[in-house]
Amino acid sequence: MNPRPVPDATVSRLPLYLRVLAELAGAGETTVSSDELAEAAGVTSAKVRKDLSALGSYGTRGIGYDVSQLIDEIRSTLGLTEHWSILIAGVGNLGQALARYKGFAERGFRVAALLDVDPTKVGTHVADLTVRHLDELPDIVRTEGVAIGVIATPAAAAQDVADRMVGAGIRSILNFAPASLAVPEAVTIRKVDLAIELQILSYYEQRDALRDLGGGSGAGAIGGS
Amino acid sequence: MNPRPVPDATVSRLPLYLRVLAELAGAGETTVSSDELAEAAGVTSAKVRKDLSALGSYGTRGIGYDVSQLIDEIRSTLGLTEHWSILIAGVGNLGQALARYKGFAERGFRVAALLDVDPTKVGTHVADLTVRHLDELPDIVRTEGVAIGVIATPAAAAQDVADRMVGAGIRSILNFAPASLAVPEAVTIRKVDLAIELQILSYYEQRDALRDLGGGSGAGAIGGS
Repeated sequence: MNPRPVPDATVSRLPLYLRVLAELAGAGETTVSSDELAEAAGVTSAKVRKDLSALGSYGTRGIGYDVSQLIDEIRSTLGLTEHWSILIAGVGNLGQALARYKGFAERGFRVAALLDVDPTKVGTHVADLTVRHLDELPDIVRTEGVAIGVIATPAAAAQDVADRMVGAGIRSILNFAPASLAVPEAVTIRKVDLAIELQILSYYEQRDALRDLGGGSGAGAIGGS
Repeated sequence: MNPRPVPDATVSRLPLYLRVLAELAGAGETTVSSDELAEAAGVTSAKVRKDLSALGSYGTRGIGYDVSQLIDEIRSTLGLTEHWSILIAGVGNLGQALARYKGFAERGFRVAALLDVDPTKVGTHVADLTVRHLDELPDIVRTEGVAIGVIATPAAAAQDVADRMVGAGIRSILNFAPASLAVPEAVTIRKVDLAIELQILSYYEQRDALRDLGGGSGAGAIGGS
């Protein structure tokens, strides 16, 4: 059975909805409106309804969506009902932080291997794993069934690592290195830019600073017609 | 002068456009179409045009947008023409990785201080900074003019650190800890979830796996009408 493809933009918002839903479920909520989901995820409610309809979820008028059902549907759409093995290349501070990051295991991602080329790192233990040499990558991908490769190397090494991952049969890559990488079209690569969120915060910081300068006595001075 | 507020959803896409534009500028491109920007940023071209019109940029029919002018406009809207001082609380692997992350300085964010409570860390040097005790936070915010606080502590410590930041006058917080934090309404807090991108990759990995199972001889077998 071939599932209907979900638009890329919708796919990229599903993890946000999932996070909000998990928090609601944890707080004992059983239903949620598109308005609530929209506010928590920072999009319009029309977009929430459209995104969820792409999954076949339409909610119930006046009641909203069933929280646990929606969690199941999103998890199933995202493939989170399977357990994926990932490997992390680059065991510097970032690689070690990722290896110890509890959020991966909670979402069904198992860190299967840590790889580096530095002889002072290979053979050491990090987060219950023994760091192995990058040359072992093809063997590890095969024996561990690795689905996703994570690049946490310095920028200069990232393209070589990506090439090795692709050569070993990996077709999903998450790149934390500050470098743009070229991969074949059949490979999905996503870049994590840790400064993106800081730039968004900068907007609000600047806006509030301007408001303070112009507003005088604070929020009460603004508003009106 | 009070700038017109930019919609939150637009603000959150501006750093993506900026990254694409910086790459184009680096490659010597002087103009860009909304289609190109849309594809690179993973949104529709209609959305790109709407987002940029909120900044007062409309492009030129048949030519597109001027790359360097658009970079200036986005940087100015995001407040990136100022230099913001940030502090990082929590100097574990993640905090150290963030302290050394070159992408911050490149975007005008200066790491002004590193804070921890662990006596084995306070006084040590990381990325040219001496780690200071969390109790010094109010002094540091005042003397260094810190605008943004970054939380890289374990989840259990994150709310206390957020409270201390708010108490010291910080009103923009970036939270890397896997915890939902409560802050006053006047404070902007954004949570970075390092597993979000993995969940997006999971969708494509699953889709490709299903296609391989059902498609037989690969991409050529799909398509048609």
